[in-house]
Amino acid sequence: MNVHVALLHYPVYNRQHEVIVSSVTNLDIHDIARASLTYGVSRFYLVTPLEDQLRLIRRLLSHWREGYGSTRNPERKVALELVTAAPSLAEVIGIIESDCGQKPELVVTSASLADATLSYSEAREKIQQGKPLLILFGTGWGLTKEVLAMADSTLPPIRGFSDYNHLSVRSAVAIILDRLMGTTNDRYLL
Amino acid sequence: MNVHVALLHYPVYNRQHEVIVSSVTNLDIHDIARASLTYGVSRFYLVTPLEDQLRLIRRLLSHWREGYGSTRNPERKVALELVTAAPSLAEVIGIIESDCGQKPELVVTSASLADATLSYSEAREKIQQGKPLLILFGTGWGLTKEVLAMADSTLPPIRGFSDYNHLSVRSAVAIILDRLMGTTNDRYLL
Repeated sequence: MNVHVALLHYPVYNRQHEVIVSSVTNLDIHDIARASLTYGVSRFYLVTPLEDQLRLIRRLLSHWREGYGSTRNPERKVALELVTAAPSLAEVIGIIESDCGQKPELVVTSASLADATLSYSEAREKIQQGKPLLILFGTGWGLTKEVLAMADSTLPPIRGFSDYNHLSVRSAVAIILDRLMGTTNDRYLL
Repeated sequence: MNVHVALLHYPVYNRQHEVIVSSVTNLDIHDIARASLTYGVSRFYLVTPLEDQLRLIRRLLSHWREGYGSTRNPERKVALELVTAAPSLAEVIGIIESDCGQKPELVVTSASLADATLSYSEAREKIQQGKPLLILFGTGWGLTKEVLAMADSTLPPIRGFSDYNHLSVRSAVAIILDRLMGTTNDRYLL
């Protein structure tokens, strides 16, 4: 599997549709790292340009990987091994390119069905072929239109039976990873 | 849709497989309420026998429903309208029975494929027929074997491509609701 996940804290919108840097949230790191490990994601990148936030992430990671947390909660340690802090999306793309020998395909999730260019089953096929994918998620009120425009492919929105969609980014990541990499035997065979 | 979700804080296991009452977590309430509203869940029950925890939940709900939080975050308010605090699973079953005129079918998720008695597609069919289902989730290290034994149906475990499964309960609820009630057009047609 050659799937990478990035959680962007910049550039994202706030409620008023202004471009902001959001704060890193402890629980986003844990929940998304655990989901990433469950579904076989190669690496989970936390992206923020703020030096103090990058330091905070590294301190937190070292607590769980090497400090008291590593013996207290070994299943968190192994999940957090997947996490890398990075100052920008460009840096993340560079790391993946140098690791894989090719640029990853940038994938985002659209807010409307009309914008979708890639189905979940097509994305599953790409993943099975080993193509490097980088799936982008935004904190706050979502990725800016400039980031969405950079994407190579856009997945259809997550929708249930209601018009309400204010899932937390933690829930959205879990659902997308399940749609892309959940084992089909659970869903189809039984 | 006649699907109900209950998050049990008792009886659940801790890491040492002892039966405990776990503490209510603010973020569980928000994330699961938002996922419940997204997927059309009828009601989300928070179950704990502890009087002070029940009081805490009610204070929190009233802050977001009526207090400062209701105007600051209207999309949280509408999600939290779905939440009911209850002292026991028996009480939850009683409420649903009196609302729906029949006992709900109790559904849990198994840890192993061998225990599964109901596929996701069979469960989707029941939901479409309007049968009342109550899906149980456990905090901590999961529901006790006594609760699992009470279930009428057991869904296959959530699995990705790895052996690791330590998803947060928030992620697990989001994924199960998507498997049961995500719109199929997103997944299959595009």
